[in-house]
Amino acid sequence: MELNHTHDANTRSWLESANAPGTDFPIQNLPFGVFRRKGSSETFRGGVAIGDQVIDLAAIARAGAVSGAAAVKAVNACAGDALNDFLTMGPAAWRALRHALFDLLKTGASGPGVNALRASLVPQAEVEHRVPTRIGDYTDFYTSIHHARNVGRVIRPDDPLTPNFQWIPIAYHGRASSVVISGTAFHRPMGQAMAPGASAPVYGPCRRLDYELEMGFYVGPGNALGTPIPLTEAEDHIFGMCLLNDWSARDHQFWEMNPLGPFLGKNFCTTVSPWIVTMEALAPYRVPFAHPADEPQPLAYLDSPGNSAQGGVDVQLEVRLEARAHRERGIAPDRLSATSFRHQYWTIAQMLAQHTVGGCNLQPGDLLGTGTISGPTPAEAGAIVELSAGGTRDVPLPGINAQRRFLEDGDTVILRGWCEKPGAARIGFGESRGEVLPAVG
Amino acid sequence: MELNHTHDANTRSWLESANAPGTDFPIQNLPFGVFRRKGSSETFRGGVAIGDQVIDLAAIARAGAVSGAAAVKAVNACAGDALNDFLTMGPAAWRALRHALFDLLKTGASGPGVNALRASLVPQAEVEHRVPTRIGDYTDFYTSIHHARNVGRVIRPDDPLTPNFQWIPIAYHGRASSVVISGTAFHRPMGQAMAPGASAPVYGPCRRLDYELEMGFYVGPGNALGTPIPLTEAEDHIFGMCLLNDWSARDHQFWEMNPLGPFLGKNFCTTVSPWIVTMEALAPYRVPFAHPADEPQPLAYLDSPGNSAQGGVDVQLEVRLEARAHRERGIAPDRLSATSFRHQYWTIAQMLAQHTVGGCNLQPGDLLGTGTISGPTPAEAGAIVELSAGGTRDVPLPGINAQRRFLEDGDTVILRGWCEKPGAARIGFGESRGEVLPAVG
Repeated sequence: MELNHTHDANTRSWLESANAPGTDFPIQNLPFGVFRRKGSSETFRGGVAIGDQVIDLAAIARAGAVSGAAAVKAVNACAGDALNDFLTMGPAAWRALRHALFDLLKTGASGPGVNALRASLVPQAEVEHRVPTRIGDYTDFYTSIHHARNVGRVIRPDDPLTPNFQWIPIAYHGRASSVVISGTAFHRPMGQAMAPGASAPVYGPCRRLDYELEMGFYVGPGNALGTPIPLTEAEDHIFGMCLLNDWSARDHQFWEMNPLGPFLGKNFCTTVSPWIVTMEALAPYRVPFAHPADEPQPLAYLDSPGNSAQGGVDVQLEVRLEARAHRERGIAPDRLSATSFRHQYWTIAQMLAQHTVGGCNLQPGDLLGTGTISGPTPAEAGAIVELSAGGTRDVPLPGINAQRRFLEDGDTVILRGWCEKPGAARIGFGESRGEVLPAVG
Repeated sequence: MELNHTHDANTRSWLESANAPGTDFPIQNLPFGVFRRKGSSETFRGGVAIGDQVIDLAAIARAGAVSGAAAVKAVNACAGDALNDFLTMGPAAWRALRHALFDLLKTGASGPGVNALRASLVPQAEVEHRVPTRIGDYTDFYTSIHHARNVGRVIRPDDPLTPNFQWIPIAYHGRASSVVISGTAFHRPMGQAMAPGASAPVYGPCRRLDYELEMGFYVGPGNALGTPIPLTEAEDHIFGMCLLNDWSARDHQFWEMNPLGPFLGKNFCTTVSPWIVTMEALAPYRVPFAHPADEPQPLAYLDSPGNSAQGGVDVQLEVRLEARAHRERGIAPDRLSATSFRHQYWTIAQMLAQHTVGGCNLQPGDLLGTGTISGPTPAEAGAIVELSAGGTRDVPLPGINAQRRFLEDGDTVILRGWCEKPGAARIGFGESRGEVLPAVG
């Protein structure tokens, strides 16, 4: 995707909070979500983050604030309580609306459209969010070779990587109904686990509760059953990206998953961040595909010059843990790890192409997860089972002089993501946050 | 579930085709689906099968044909193009509507309601169907120990059964978007396969295409995230059952599925039969739970007296194959195998309870599959990979003097199911049918 004037790092907004250093939401970002005033009975509707405010897309649609036929049609599709209709419209519509908002927000803009937009603003501190689409199906991939090796070592020390990893963007179907918005607490799941050497499993609360640092991406127009999307067209079907926490009950998962994969070990909760950062906003941060030259090269249907040249995305990611003790003592959450999405073995375009190659149909609003994002060094691991080497080593929480091998009740896990580099505007994803409540059962 | 007057085998209908020996749809059945006139642009609406006709539920709702507040509310919920609202209402509503229809259909019934129902009838030969609910999530179980042993022998000859099988109703998340209605043809999927001894996989059309004989069941009210459904309440959340064919690309599946389970090997197509036979209609055919005394007994959360006494369902099942040659020569499809659902190792109540035990939420209209249903003898296997011992033995098609090891282009696989025993009315499921078209790619 080529850069255009909406990527110009020098453009500023008349909204001062959008120009604040370190903001996730400058005028160059403009991510989409669904919101209403916190605690109200308002209907949810589409919104776009700018600085510390949310643009109410339903309000500006009613007010006729945006101009241009494509942008008008697009903003009207954002007035409902999910973004599916907007995502169905495809890249031209997405771009038209983002550009129209950019033009209304930049310094010096004026007129009735600007006034209507200004009147629609709601402070982010006063809103609550919903999962931004009606997710038809949710799929989770497994595309970090470092994560695959780290986890593989726990289960198969001599042969950590399965032979298919370097050939297939591996994935499994996840549970759409239990995808929740950031801020939703969940109960530690009950389930079966088999202790090493035991002759029978035990039913009880999960004892090896974990998070997984992932990114998610939302499907745009999609495809009909039986009609694959080729790699070269894959990104036309990706609206944008978010943060995703694939909470995992490792004891339940490892007991149940042979031979058909994870089920209850994953389906009790998956958390997404409220804002979808568009692929257009991410354009300055595209990087070459990381597939190493000394690894098997992709089969032809998973290979293209565009994918090689800029299939990757350089998103900085971090995981923080906020225990009860942090909150009680007013101490900032401890950082558990940090890495970048640029290290992923397969690109999001390859994931989407692979998903459809057998004919499976993707629908507007579907959610795809990247799988745990672990970087090349041990400190860059995206799950605590990796940091604690399968629960055999303490992971320090220096802020409260404590440690973890797995998550405890009251722990809140916070994922953050952002992009920055010289000459480009810093843009961010906000955060994904979820608290572990005690088991019920 | 106790038997009532709707199960009386002696009751007959004024509609003669409902009294025909061998009909799947006597007055004691009354299964629900969604239909419209074939090739028309009518909107789909709820329907109930009786004899060789379909009762148009939208028409009888408009006409005020049913009486009783509960039945009126229920039939109104069936007027739309999916049964989700009706399934949300729960067993009392389901029963009220089935009983109201029974009363209108029985011999001797008369009055304006009967006249309106009669006027609503559409011949089954003139209708087309849609998947009867908007499926939020589709889950497929793996609960036949005979299937698990048969398939396990292909992959792990010395140790065919994984250690969790006798403790957990194993399942994986399937793909909801590619669930299609009986009669929908699909293309042989493209994908990756790794030949034995090869150093790299090959991309191409599936060479080991299979069917799986399964039953499906649809979720009623469901549960909130974090609130499991106990085993003793599980059947209040099951509306009814259907036939389900979990088409499988074995070469793609076996290459991709380690460690996260089947994905492209399954998600290109899943076929369901049009009619949902209600749990109430199946009440005469409930049988003791088949869990053998010499196997590990279920953990407490998967055990109840009711489940032991009548957790099973005795549904007769068969698989037939109709090749192009059968059609060209006017020869009836060959029967590949036959068995009963009574042999399943876990019950549908146990499957549903297990699905929610970690807190996962089920929603009205969700579809759960039982996994391949293979009986105790080799001739009762529910997939061709079992009948052909992993593609090493011919499976005869005597009608056309041919054989198969896997499916060929032009093959149509037909699943049928019915219940019969002395003293009870025979009821049937109709059929699930799908044709393999050549690969595109």
